[in-house]
Amino acid sequence: MQLPNCATLLLEQVDGVLHLTLNRPDSRNAMSLAMVTELRAVLAAVQGDLSVRAIVLRGAGGHFCAGGDIKDMAGARAAGGDAYRALNRAFGSLLEQAQHTPQVLIAVLEGAVLGGGMGLACVSDIAICQQDAKFGLPETSLGILPAQIAPFVVRRIGLTQTRRLALTAARFDGSEAARLGLVHFSEANKAALEHRLAEVLSQVRQCAPQANAQTKALLLGAENQALGPLLDRAAEQFAAAVSGAEGVEGTLAFVQKRAPTWAAE
Amino acid sequence: MQLPNCATLLLEQVDGVLHLTLNRPDSRNAMSLAMVTELRAVLAAVQGDLSVRAIVLRGAGGHFCAGGDIKDMAGARAAGGDAYRALNRAFGSLLEQAQHTPQVLIAVLEGAVLGGGMGLACVSDIAICQQDAKFGLPETSLGILPAQIAPFVVRRIGLTQTRRLALTAARFDGSEAARLGLVHFSEANKAALEHRLAEVLSQVRQCAPQANAQTKALLLGAENQALGPLLDRAAEQFAAAVSGAEGVEGTLAFVQKRAPTWAAE
Amino acid sequence: MQLPNCATLLLEQVDGVLHLTLNRPDSRNAMSLAMVTELRAVLAAVQGDLSVRAIVLRGAGGHFCAGGDIKDMAGARAAGGDAYRALNRAFGSLLEQAQHTPQVLIAVLEGAVLGGGMGLACVSDIAICQQDAKFGLPETSLGILPAQIAPFVVRRIGLTQTRRLALTAARFDGSEAARLGLVHFSEANKAALEHRLAEVLSQVRQCAPQANAQTKALLLGAENQALGPLLDRAAEQFAAAVSGAEGVEGTLAFVQKRAPTWAAE
Repeated sequence: MQLPNCATLLLEQVDGVLHLTLNRPDSRNAMSLAMVTELRAVLAAVQGDLSVRAIVLRGAGGHFCAGGDIKDMAGARAAGGDAYRALNRAFGSLLEQAQHTPQVLIAVLEGAVLGGGMGLACVSDIAICQQDAKFGLPETSLGILPAQIAPFVVRRIGLTQTRRLALTAARFDGSEAARLGLVHFSEANKAALEHRLAEVLSQVRQCAPQANAQTKALLLGAENQALGPLLDRAAEQFAAAVSGAEGVEGTLAFVQKRAPTWAAE
Repeated sequence: MQLPNCATLLLEQVDGVLHLTLNRPDSRNAMSLAMVTELRAVLAAVQGDLSVRAIVLRGAGGHFCAGGDIKDMAGARAAGGDAYRALNRAFGSLLEQAQHTPQVLIAVLEGAVLGGGMGLACVSDIAICQQDAKFGLPETSLGILPAQIAPFVVRRIGLTQTRRLALTAARFDGSEAARLGLVHFSEANKAALEHRLAEVLSQVRQCAPQANAQTKALLLGAENQALGPLLDRAAEQFAAAVSGAEGVEGTLAFVQKRAPTWAAE
Repeated sequence: MQLPNCATLLLEQVDGVLHLTLNRPDSRNAMSLAMVTELRAVLAAVQGDLSVRAIVLRGAGGHFCAGGDIKDMAGARAAGGDAYRALNRAFGSLLEQAQHTPQVLIAVLEGAVLGGGMGLACVSDIAICQQDAKFGLPETSLGILPAQIAPFVVRRIGLTQTRRLALTAARFDGSEAARLGLVHFSEANKAALEHRLAEVLSQVRQCAPQANAQTKALLLGAENQALGPLLDRAAEQFAAAVSGAEGVEGTLAFVQKRAPTWAAE
């Protein structure tokens, strides 16, 4: 796999994990169109490579992402016509793509997690935040809409909580984010955050890559497909998995009381 | 805007907020057909008027609403035929209408919040209760069904919690209501309740009226519309909002570090 | 009603409650094809008999169910061809059937509640666990998929929590299961567990059998039916219920300040 060169992202691969860091710290990693485009290219490049078991998404400089980039907005204003619409929809396409990434997507959230940053957090498989992170949907207080973000927040934490957050622009911290189910873990400090990330990565390594990718696709389909046909297809996938390479190795390793190949250190 | 004359409701407009009080305290504000009809008329009257930023719905006399009105039931029995069905469906139509009110709908919940009262709470954008409020779905213990209410409870707190509540008729208090996500805030006493309401209203005033109304519609659509077309339309709405009056004022105010017009005291 | 003879289940009827105990304690009640077949036969036999007000599902020997049976897997491997698919789908059919049981289904969860055992817990109306129970979806760590289970877990606790559990195979205890909404009650010890079960059964007996069965069907339909037609049908059901035997008895008993017939000791 060849990763693209990126001006707005730091990329590092270690032990089957792609560390993907939003790197515009001067603007608290505001989501520029360039950054959207680079994120989409990176996700497309790793899509077929399950030797990458997990993607860890975080922000440089103590913030995750403060939302959309004001300069891009100004640029779209100057360009006129369709530019606003296209700029906005591109971010939604990134969220759709990230939601369906076959790898396990882990978001590590510090500092500002606002607007589009909150949207990105909402498509992760596992979200870990620092307790003092700042979450919120400020859009309507600026006279605009959380247009591409809101549907993903509804899917993440449900309509009931989303409507309060979106219609008040209220800020909230990591403890509240965990209570709402936006994140899975809220940690007291940086050391605890990194410790939790290491634990989660260790758990992900116990799970077979193909099985995880297929299971993730199954879960994402479960919300909007009819149950009967979904279970029919799932039974076919089960039969293929259990007699495939991972299923044979996994059940054999279980009987032999040893770690399967994918979990070996 | 001209509000209708109401026998069962108290109406008061203050600072862009419509205070709407169920006013049949002798029957703990039981939901009569007359009250349903008046509520629908009031919501229809304010629908187009976004100078009303929020609607605060509460009950007179220390109770929110104890459920359906027994006398109307007796009347329907006497009328026979279709009367029960029509009476029941009218309440569901009220819930559908209240769910889609363009203004921010805030429910303030004290005392009995039972049956249809719980249904009304479930279509609010923000629900604040007193900790000693009494919630529950007593219908099946009376040999009848929470027919119009149950679908809104499922949407509010999910199938898992609703099935227990509906099949046991269990009562629960405000702390449990907050834990289940039925309400957003449970407060220890009346003073704390009023303080929270003031805080929430202050937050709502920070948000632009049109942006809030459009965002609310977007959120309500997010649960049952296909994601791709939903995001396409949302991008068009975003483009219109950002170049519209509220978007121009909101982003300008942000740059000028001042409150936008809609948030000025 | 005639219950089938069962080799893998213990059946006992007491006071309108069917106690159904998974009884393969040597394998921690692993879900064999024989057990799936017998469970389906029992549920089919009681389906039309609302004198059975509730079904209490638990496991013998201190465990609920440790998941699929390894020997059946080996048998399917030997049989080849379609056997894996059919074996897997049969379990999904059991879950679909249990989800729609007209009686109130109560799961009592101790010890291992893994894989398919967790699936069964997810279709109960009310789940009560002991705090030290062990929950988890170990499938992907064995190179296979929680194929029939995952859709029911998503419906039970939502996509956000399910994706973490399925992609990490993490184990968790009863407190966490309650926090996630997988169970309704987590109890400190066996005595508290039995006390809670008795309380829940007492609540269920307050509710009319037909009204409960119809309400359960309404709740299950609320997630995937359009709201307007759903409310139309619900209003017809309401009218039939209120003028039917249960509705007449229930409202009369309410006026006469006595327990309705179905709640009499």
